[in-house]
Amino acid sequence: MKAHIVTIGDEILIGQIINSNAAYIGEKLTQAHVNVSGSSVVGDDEEIIINEFNRVFEKNDLVIVTGGLGPTHDDVTRKCVVEFFNTELVVDYEVLSDIKKFFEARGRVLTPTNEDQALVPKISKTIRNPYGTAPGYWIEKQNKIFICMPGVPYEMKNMMDSFIIPKLVQKTENDNFILTKNLLTTGIPESMLYDKLGNIDELLQGAKLAFLPSQFGVRMRLTIVSKDEKNATNKLDEIEQKIRSLIGRYIYGTENDTLESVVAKLFIDRGLKLSVAESCTGGLIMSRLTNISGSSNFLERGVVAYSNAAKVELLHVDEDTIQKNGAVSLEVARQLAEGVKAISGTDVGLSVTGIMGPTGATVGKPIGLVFIGLCNDKICTAKEFHFGDDRLLNKDRTSQAALEMLRRNLLGISYDD
Amino acid sequence: MKAHIVTIGDEILIGQIINSNAAYIGEKLTQAHVNVSGSSVVGDDEEIIINEFNRVFEKNDLVIVTGGLGPTHDDVTRKCVVEFFNTELVVDYEVLSDIKKFFEARGRVLTPTNEDQALVPKISKTIRNPYGTAPGYWIEKQNKIFICMPGVPYEMKNMMDSFIIPKLVQKTENDNFILTKNLLTTGIPESMLYDKLGNIDELLQGAKLAFLPSQFGVRMRLTIVSKDEKNATNKLDEIEQKIRSLIGRYIYGTENDTLESVVAKLFIDRGLKLSVAESCTGGLIMSRLTNISGSSNFLERGVVAYSNAAKVELLHVDEDTIQKNGAVSLEVARQLAEGVKAISGTDVGLSVTGIMGPTGATVGKPIGLVFIGLCNDKICTAKEFHFGDDRLLNKDRTSQAALEMLRRNLLGISYDD
Repeated sequence: MKAHIVTIGDEILIGQIINSNAAYIGEKLTQAHVNVSGSSVVGDDEEIIINEFNRVFEKNDLVIVTGGLGPTHDDVTRKCVVEFFNTELVVDYEVLSDIKKFFEARGRVLTPTNEDQALVPKISKTIRNPYGTAPGYWIEKQNKIFICMPGVPYEMKNMMDSFIIPKLVQKTENDNFILTKNLLTTGIPESMLYDKLGNIDELLQGAKLAFLPSQFGVRMRLTIVSKDEKNATNKLDEIEQKIRSLIGRYIYGTENDTLESVVAKLFIDRGLKLSVAESCTGGLIMSRLTNISGSSNFLERGVVAYSNAAKVELLHVDEDTIQKNGAVSLEVARQLAEGVKAISGTDVGLSVTGIMGPTGATVGKPIGLVFIGLCNDKICTAKEFHFGDDRLLNKDRTSQAALEMLRRNLLGISYDD
Repeated sequence: MKAHIVTIGDEILIGQIINSNAAYIGEKLTQAHVNVSGSSVVGDDEEIIINEFNRVFEKNDLVIVTGGLGPTHDDVTRKCVVEFFNTELVVDYEVLSDIKKFFEARGRVLTPTNEDQALVPKISKTIRNPYGTAPGYWIEKQNKIFICMPGVPYEMKNMMDSFIIPKLVQKTENDNFILTKNLLTTGIPESMLYDKLGNIDELLQGAKLAFLPSQFGVRMRLTIVSKDEKNATNKLDEIEQKIRSLIGRYIYGTENDTLESVVAKLFIDRGLKLSVAESCTGGLIMSRLTNISGSSNFLERGVVAYSNAAKVELLHVDEDTIQKNGAVSLEVARQLAEGVKAISGTDVGLSVTGIMGPTGATVGKPIGLVFIGLCNDKICTAKEFHFGDDRLLNKDRTSQAALEMLRRNLLGISYDD
């Protein structure tokens, strides 16, 4: 099945908003063995939108549209759908009652503007929207599928996951299998990974391997296309095992794993408790860990010790040590980890202190200098890292390195090669 | 000048990478008064790429292409450009010496693969690349402009800012002015904003107003197109003032402001200090505030009091109050704010406690229930909020509501209408 994604909205064209919806839809379609042949963005202009509908509906088996279904005057997608399919608007009473319930639940007054959203194209099967008031449309014509969703990401994602993907999977069962496997690495640069893999063609035997670096590490995407799912699966497993035998220590997860989810599982499975002392990351490490449902089972507490006073008063860091070595130092990192472990009585204490930039650099302490401390019942150690110039990227990199230090410590993976 | 952006790469179609390049280019072009009429993504397939070049070059005055200029086998853009413009490859010796210097500076060995990147289409004026080895191309034909850049974001951004935009600005001086103004609101739904604005056509007098909702609030984008910049500016100001007179209290910023940057500025300008006690947001509020350079001037410290023990030991919350009302309660929120203010000696103490889901709901305390506490030298208060079912969205919404509570408190804006 060949698909095209159309994103509607001036805000995307002029770069006000990054088109994350197209990425989400593209990923889900690919997982469902749908071949995404193209993606395009058009502004809130009826003529341009209808021309784009004509162009892509003719060339593809599936067209997925997002955006422009809101309640306000600048949302013109519904009008374009009605004209493109030469249909009319009818009231969908199921949607109408959904909208009424939606407003009751929030104790808000229902306005005609909202009620109007229960009007849907007669030709479409409506897709219900538990998170908002704009329904989606599923239209089938000439053995092709045309889908419209609101542009609000969490409303769109819910429609994709709960309705659209399950329906599409039934239709793509007999197509070519595109198997992909993502191996997520961190703490090692792309070029070094590449070298450690040796002769790449010999390793891949015709499979595709893409290296996708970010501040969180390098995602390795392995892809095999085949008519026979079983053969493809076996080949994929075989290559994955070879890769793991070469660089397995750097692989913290697969697919949509996050390092925080992997670390959380390690702590929960082992019944261990964690406390965290953050300076330069300002709470990012704990925020990432608490993104994981169930984090209250292992994350006991944490301190964002931004001021020196907080480091001394709350975490018992030695004032002289700060005077002598500075707050950004190996010894203070060690004492922060020791201190937070002690006051919270956890099995592990983690700490970070560093200079995120753009200001704060001193002689011998450049922007990007970070110390990460880790204490458990056996050891109490700290490690030095050097990151880049960008404040937000440095916060991401520091939090990733700190979580990776937890992972390696729990799994007994050393940093020495 | 009418422009189209083409992004090349399978990884974007299948959603492995979000198309942030197109957003950056779209924003820069718009600022340079270039009208971005469309944007599209195609995979690494020569035939498809050349067809797309044909389609968009015919319809536009400017085509900007990114991606597929790298040194590896799957980079086919250069080949497509040579075929599309029926030209040939020639060595650019300036680029060749750039590449050699690039490798010397990094103490790396120059390989033939890298040297090959000095071969450029004869028809193009090359755009030098200080951050990488792939040059960009600037091609002019039939009074139209065709530009290619590498897909690596910081290489592309440097070419846009230092070479392409300055050249384009000269050419667009006599075009229409496209003025936009973004008004950022939070704490009020899209439909209610829309209704509060009354007769929208009367308000806008032909200007365009878009409503862009997210979990952080609703962005309102006002757009005016005109030959006369002065008139447009005056009209924009006039409409903005009308809008502010109707819903000004909900507007926390403009353009690329974030609520954390606005709140940070308020604290820094007034020389006030803040401390934060987070439970359900797990550090997200402090992480957002510490994204702002200079946050150490007002954020003294914070505690992530995830366990009840932490709430009692570190923040002196009354144990009986937790027993009686539960940790997620108005009174505990108040005591958390009071406690963190007291131990840190700051002017303001902020706290959040709530149920983010998917688990943790109890009788009378559904998922999405949040209490936010705020204490200063005059008042010590807490407020109840109801959000949705999604854990991560609830964390975002809670952090946004907490920051908005700080903003309103500092500006003396009440919550009552």
